[in-house]
Amino acid sequence: MVNYPDGRKARPAEHKTGAGGRGMELEKEINLTNSYYLDTDRAVIHKKPTPVTIVKVDYPMRTAAKITEAYFKVPSTTDYNGIYRGKYLDFEAKECASKTSFPIKSIHEHQIRHLDSVIRHGAIAFVIVRFTVYGETYYVDAGEMNSYIRTCGRSSIPYKWFQEHGILIPYNYVKPVDYLQIVDQRFFKENAND
Amino acid sequence: MVNYPDGRKARPAEHKTGAGGRGMELEKEINLTNSYYLDTDRAVIHKKPTPVTIVKVDYPMRTAAKITEAYFKVPSTTDYNGIYRGKYLDFEAKECASKTSFPIKSIHEHQIRHLDSVIRHGAIAFVIVRFTVYGETYYVDAGEMNSYIRTCGRSSIPYKWFQEHGILIPYNYVKPVDYLQIVDQRFFKENAND
Repeated sequence: MVNYPDGRKARPAEHKTGAGGRGMELEKEINLTNSYYLDTDRAVIHKKPTPVTIVKVDYPMRTAAKITEAYFKVPSTTDYNGIYRGKYLDFEAKECASKTSFPIKSIHEHQIRHLDSVIRHGAIAFVIVRFTVYGETYYVDAGEMNSYIRTCGRSSIPYKWFQEHGILIPYNYVKPVDYLQIVDQRFFKENAND
Repeated sequence: MVNYPDGRKARPAEHKTGAGGRGMELEKEINLTNSYYLDTDRAVIHKKPTPVTIVKVDYPMRTAAKITEAYFKVPSTTDYNGIYRGKYLDFEAKECASKTSFPIKSIHEHQIRHLDSVIRHGAIAFVIVRFTVYGETYYVDAGEMNSYIRTCGRSSIPYKWFQEHGILIPYNYVKPVDYLQIVDQRFFKENAND
């Protein structure tokens, strides 16, 4: 298991299995982290609502409008964005159940293009990938990952690549996915220990 | 009718009525404008999906998952955000059918608080209000509008206030709500004529 630079262990073992692996655990933990950032006024970062095409809505008397037919849409952007220290921040998050590699198709082509374009405009852009088997959550620069995807000629990114190019995101009870700690290290070095 | 600083007339009269007033025209026009900004790589600004709580999903064989029960949620942020010239940009857009005033309740308390908080973090934040009767679409600084809302002791903002404090957004066939022109004037003066 890879440890953090300061010698702490990676994510506690009891988090390795359990509710994780159903693909929602990472999302919940990021939402908790974002709520903490919001409550402490550190950053304003939200998950975008799931995009759906609404086809039919009923308006029953005296009760709320009820959507009775709708379909999931392919997202045209990433799931998360917001503002941190005056900078636009944008990221996508994915869980990966494989021990050996992350399937590139987990990230939509649209999302890759979106990340490229916000980078061009000056964003802090990254991808969070959790290998559920190892209980490890990596921060990866979106630009670095996109250029790997474009040149690798493979359908997946090896786990080893994340070990070499990613940065482990520390786990913390109130900030389960404290990605801003990595953003501070990468972009605001003078305040890395906030 | 108020004209633009350069003497052009406000929105053409044929846009004053018609499909407008059903509350979706402004949204469509902003989406068109955002697509134009995106296609020309000028900015990356998207409308967030409508937030819904999904209660029931059917998975019919061989066809896409179908949502059969869902409800609209009160949004916790504004509808639009993105990046422009390296800055985080955030806004809400509303149509108003009244001739005399804009009802404050059209903007959720959550959205007002969200705008306050992104301003604190350094965002360009504003509200777009269209008076459909006049065919006029105003850019209003979110900070200025929020402080008016907090101190006015009224349930609506007079039309006159928009004339005095807002800036008319020019209409253009390819950019029906060219709000970045106003953002340039307000925040990037040296390039106001891009």
